Amino acid sequence: MRGNQFGKFFSITTFGESHGEALGVVIDGMPAGALVDIEQLKKELKRRAPGQHAVHTNRKEDDLPEILSGVFEGKTLGTPITVIVRNTNQKSADYDKLKNEYRPGHADQTTMDKFGIRDHRGGGRASGRETVSRVIAGYFAKLIIPKISFYGYISQVAHLKLATHPKNHQVSRGEINIPDSKMEAEVIAFLKECKEKGESAGGLVTLSIQGVPKGLGEPVFDKLKADLAKAMMSLPACVGVSLGAGFEFANLLGSQVSSNSKNFGGMEGGISNGEEIVMTLAFKAPSTIGEKAKEGRHDPCILPRVIPVVEAMAAIVIADHALRQETSTLAKIHR
Amino acid sequence: MRGNQFGKFFSITTFGESHGEALGVVIDGMPAGALVDIEQLKKELKRRAPGQHAVHTNRKEDDLPEILSGVFEGKTLGTPITVIVRNTNQKSADYDKLKNEYRPGHADQTTMDKFGIRDHRGGGRASGRETVSRVIAGYFAKLIIPKISFYGYISQVAHLKLATHPKNHQVSRGEINIPDSKMEAEVIAFLKECKEKGESAGGLVTLSIQGVPKGLGEPVFDKLKADLAKAMMSLPACVGVSLGAGFEFANLLGSQVSSNSKNFGGMEGGISNGEEIVMTLAFKAPSTIGEKAKEGRHDPCILPRVIPVVEAMAAIVIADHALRQETSTLAKIHR
Amino acid sequence: MRGNQFGKFFSITTFGESHGEALGVVIDGMPAGALVDIEQLKKELKRRAPGQHAVHTNRKEDDLPEILSGVFEGKTLGTPITVIVRNTNQKSADYDKLKNEYRPGHADQTTMDKFGIRDHRGGGRASGRETVSRVIAGYFAKLIIPKISFYGYISQVAHLKLATHPKNHQVSRGEINIPDSKMEAEVIAFLKECKEKGESAGGLVTLSIQGVPKGLGEPVFDKLKADLAKAMMSLPACVGVSLGAGFEFANLLGSQVSSNSKNFGGMEGGISNGEEIVMTLAFKAPSTIGEKAKEGRHDPCILPRVIPVVEAMAAIVIADHALRQETSTLAKIHR
Amino acid sequence: MRGNQFGKFFSITTFGESHGEALGVVIDGMPAGALVDIEQLKKELKRRAPGQHAVHTNRKEDDLPEILSGVFEGKTLGTPITVIVRNTNQKSADYDKLKNEYRPGHADQTTMDKFGIRDHRGGGRASGRETVSRVIAGYFAKLIIPKISFYGYISQVAHLKLATHPKNHQVSRGEINIPDSKMEAEVIAFLKECKEKGESAGGLVTLSIQGVPKGLGEPVFDKLKADLAKAMMSLPACVGVSLGAGFEFANLLGSQVSSNSKNFGGMEGGISNGEEIVMTLAFKAPSTIGEKAKEGRHDPCILPRVIPVVEAMAAIVIADHALRQETSTLAKIHR
Repeated sequence: MRGNQFGKFFSITTFGESHGEALGVVIDGMPAGALVDIEQLKKELKRRAPGQHAVHTNRKEDDLPEILSGVFEGKTLGTPITVIVRNTNQKSADYDKLKNEYRPGHADQTTMDKFGIRDHRGGGRASGRETVSRVIAGYFAKLIIPKISFYGYISQVAHLKLATHPKNHQVSRGEINIPDSKMEAEVIAFLKECKEKGESAGGLVTLSIQGVPKGLGEPVFDKLKADLAKAMMSLPACVGVSLGAGFEFANLLGSQVSSNSKNFGGMEGGISNGEEIVMTLAFKAPSTIGEKAKEGRHDPCILPRVIPVVEAMAAIVIADHALRQETSTLAKIHR
Repeated sequence: MRGNQFGKFFSITTFGESHGEALGVVIDGMPAGALVDIEQLKKELKRRAPGQHAVHTNRKEDDLPEILSGVFEGKTLGTPITVIVRNTNQKSADYDKLKNEYRPGHADQTTMDKFGIRDHRGGGRASGRETVSRVIAGYFAKLIIPKISFYGYISQVAHLKLATHPKNHQVSRGEINIPDSKMEAEVIAFLKECKEKGESAGGLVTLSIQGVPKGLGEPVFDKLKADLAKAMMSLPACVGVSLGAGFEFANLLGSQVSSNSKNFGGMEGGISNGEEIVMTLAFKAPSTIGEKAKEGRHDPCILPRVIPVVEAMAAIVIADHALRQETSTLAKIHR
Repeated sequence: MRGNQFGKFFSITTFGESHGEALGVVIDGMPAGALVDIEQLKKELKRRAPGQHAVHTNRKEDDLPEILSGVFEGKTLGTPITVIVRNTNQKSADYDKLKNEYRPGHADQTTMDKFGIRDHRGGGRASGRETVSRVIAGYFAKLIIPKISFYGYISQVAHLKLATHPKNHQVSRGEINIPDSKMEAEVIAFLKECKEKGESAGGLVTLSIQGVPKGLGEPVFDKLKADLAKAMMSLPACVGVSLGAGFEFANLLGSQVSSNSKNFGGMEGGISNGEEIVMTLAFKAPSTIGEKAKEGRHDPCILPRVIPVVEAMAAIVIADHALRQETSTLAKIHR
Repeated sequence: MRGNQFGKFFSITTFGESHGEALGVVIDGMPAGALVDIEQLKKELKRRAPGQHAVHTNRKEDDLPEILSGVFEGKTLGTPITVIVRNTNQKSADYDKLKNEYRPGHADQTTMDKFGIRDHRGGGRASGRETVSRVIAGYFAKLIIPKISFYGYISQVAHLKLATHPKNHQVSRGEINIPDSKMEAEVIAFLKECKEKGESAGGLVTLSIQGVPKGLGEPVFDKLKADLAKAMMSLPACVGVSLGAGFEFANLLGSQVSSNSKNFGGMEGGISNGEEIVMTLAFKAPSTIGEKAKEGRHDPCILPRVIPVVEAMAAIVIADHALRQETSTLAKIHR
């Protein structure tokens, strides 16, 4: 009820503060019999890991996943899967000086307003570090829906915009999830400059999902677009979500909308229609700027590292709805 | 689990097809002792009712609410509140001809894909008519949070944009929820023209919420922005949601973001900071166009009538979080 | 969260006070395509209806079900099913005299303690009348699991005990759900006497469930026995629940237990093993006794009328678990 | 949805197989600001730990709790609390011989029926070892309701019955939770004998809860008795639950019931009335008997060790309802 749980059939509960002992996730609702490849899980985590590229934070985190339950001899048991990642790289600094530091745009003050207490060593639950748990859960979600493909990419960073959207999920996204080498070079240069200056940048992420069967999503509150919107807006710094033509819809007339089914973004009435699902997400620039940012322990822009998290959240939503769909008709149940 | 339920503490379940016997809502979690004013509830429903203005559908619906449970001698009992609205104005038409009609952009086909059956007389659960239940629930939600004020307005219809946002919640929103008489006249003229031509239009809604106490919203999945995003994206035709500076954030640098706390839209880390909450919602143009639209039984633009629904959904989210907040600290519980 | 909702996949929300406008239920999670026979539903309600036999309360209630949503042309739509029953037979008495009447053993005082308000015209939500909603939900639950058979019967009333348990579900249960004509006659005579004297009686119900497939029930909190126990103990006046050998287990040694698999009552580790499920339920005597009871508007013993409610609750639990089971293994999902 | 989660406001998710890496629990809904005393938590775990007494299994488990999240500088943060216990004492045996061993009365076969896979090294989730997570959660639950006292004791083992129930919660329960030294000696002798013979025994536990405020429990499905019944029946080997006079109610007439308010067991209409809550629980004899039992790695009777688990489950239910009660009336919310 404190909102650390997400999903109904494929239900995840994440836990852990950024500077506590460990972060992790419990997955309740993973079907039995799925093959688990720990190396693949590590790869997913590495896609999100900091310190891998010059435009990332310099902070390094090993993020070694430890499976505590729910997997036996390489297969899921149908019981809750728990995976943790130890926090090994906290700065052994004098945290006391942070005790009274309330960073604007962070949850420092609002957490105090809410709970009257906070772990002042870092962002606590509000930290981007919490998303490591989501990537782990996403790995398992994808095992349920192996034919569905998730492909996210940066389509804008500050003033730098992607000229042409990639045609399919095979297009390389380079080192920092930009499917265009010219834009990639510009963004890398720009973000290095930001890092030096203690500046930060926001941008847009485009998410494409292919292979979604028809009929996923529920008619009213749990429309697929609604659950995806919540999933994305629950990410730190995500401030906007749109489907298909998105905010462009405001300008379009009905005749223009219906001229191209792509505008619908893969759903009608909030239920998947079998076409490609496309969403656009807006992220704000990190609030850490100035001298503090120059220390290099913060990302000047979270977009390069947020892509695997976005894909994971989408997979969690789609897997959840795929499971729900198993009970949609009596014919299916009695087959 | 079929997603007809929304909210955790203030939990609503809506039911009813557009052309069935009745629509309605059960509210589980309404505290006891709230004063219920049925006339005020009717007023809220009237704000949403069709057929009130030339730019609406010509369809008339009386939408008389009947309270079946949970209220006694004008007060809430703490038990589930059930309110229904009978469907009285279905066209006594030959529905058989609709049996094989699958309207693009509607949920007709996707509902069949999902359930293998649909009530072909209308949109069923996907119909905008379902939102009457949400307005009813919103009325009760507001009783829990009487000091919080919700104010939605049209900020764009097709190419027509609002020049200046209203300064406070007292600014008149005219006949169709536009807080600017010049824009209002233009939109009315434009939508009348659309109606004649069988054309339709999309647009933007801005929602302002004032008086929200600090500390509402949960740190991870149930961030206030996430729950509000889901609430809005669960509305028919809503295709985009943003908070504060929203999609503008993509262009802004960290130094620009932090130059104005208004950019945060009333939240930090997904938890309310006591400032005004501002969201922007994109709605697509109704899919009914051409000859069918000319019959006049469809709205050429849903924005004029969606405002009370948007406010209701926001109230439902905020009331839910206000209740949750009652158990946030041990000090509060033991007071 | 106020506990008017039960079940996870087959999820029901009941509403209505005993002397309010109507009682009813919303079912969220009913699969699409089930055939609905309103006459069969009425028969189920009639089994529970008061005033049918001399040992019942004299109160008559017509209990006509009205389906408001979720059923179209005789089939379930996959959308929420709402059924209401109007309260038509409230005594048009001077309810004001009841305002300060707090009946011991009823929820009158505890409801005030909880909510600070109550509908003093009757038992409100605590009334046995609420169970009409459960019987309705049970009818739909059984549509999901047509091969499973539920058979409840009275095995004890006060000092009168059933000598031999029936061998199968075809044994007639007579007029008041006692599968033995001798005991039936004794109980009828005894309860008539109770009614005259203003006395009341408790007793035991035995519930047999046949045809449950192997594998239903979840390993930990949602063991089948745990969900069934909650279902039964949520019934007014139910004060005890046991499985298989039940309280006799206290006396049995391990070697005795394992001598007969019937002792397990159809479950091992809380998961169905394909054998007959047997439970015993204890109900206390109604608290209304003395002069008030002599008025004849109360049951001297609720057991004759509680049987269809017990069966309905069991069906709701089993249907819920049958739906859950659809997602237990990846092989099943990918079949 | 796989039922590893329990509670609505104070919501726990347990995980871990008996022979996996670790067992543990995530608590979502613990209010912020509670003082955590790890030594006290260890004491609670020690009350449940095996190998402490001659009538226990000889198996030793250290059960050292490790807090991974949600506690900072000795106080709860309002974020999810995760505590794990490593499995350190698994027999380094040739587990392969267990692969095809399906023990009657255990969940071995039903787990296969359900999931098509099991961790054959032990009981998996069905093992009594899972209850270590419940004792941990119970420790935190009690921090929310410090004035409520939980006192469980053995009232019967096989043919040995407690003569007089203890008068208050201060009465010593000796070494194995029997509040009568004569009976204690008899039970110890009897269980030692059982252990030697490879026999096992069932029995009854009585649970007394004192200090529960009036008004806890919800009117319909989440009656306090219903949630407590589910909590107890979710324990391995628990096969019966009763409230107050319990199964004795079957014999009692209404006039006898109402002669003593103690019969109600502390609730009316499923809502606490401020008096002592009393429940009786029946446990069956462990299914491991014969040669296997003589190895000494199984309890001949689980009652001595189940008491702290019973108390923990009760505390979890009561704490959950105490939190819910915070939002019962508008007056309380607006105080």
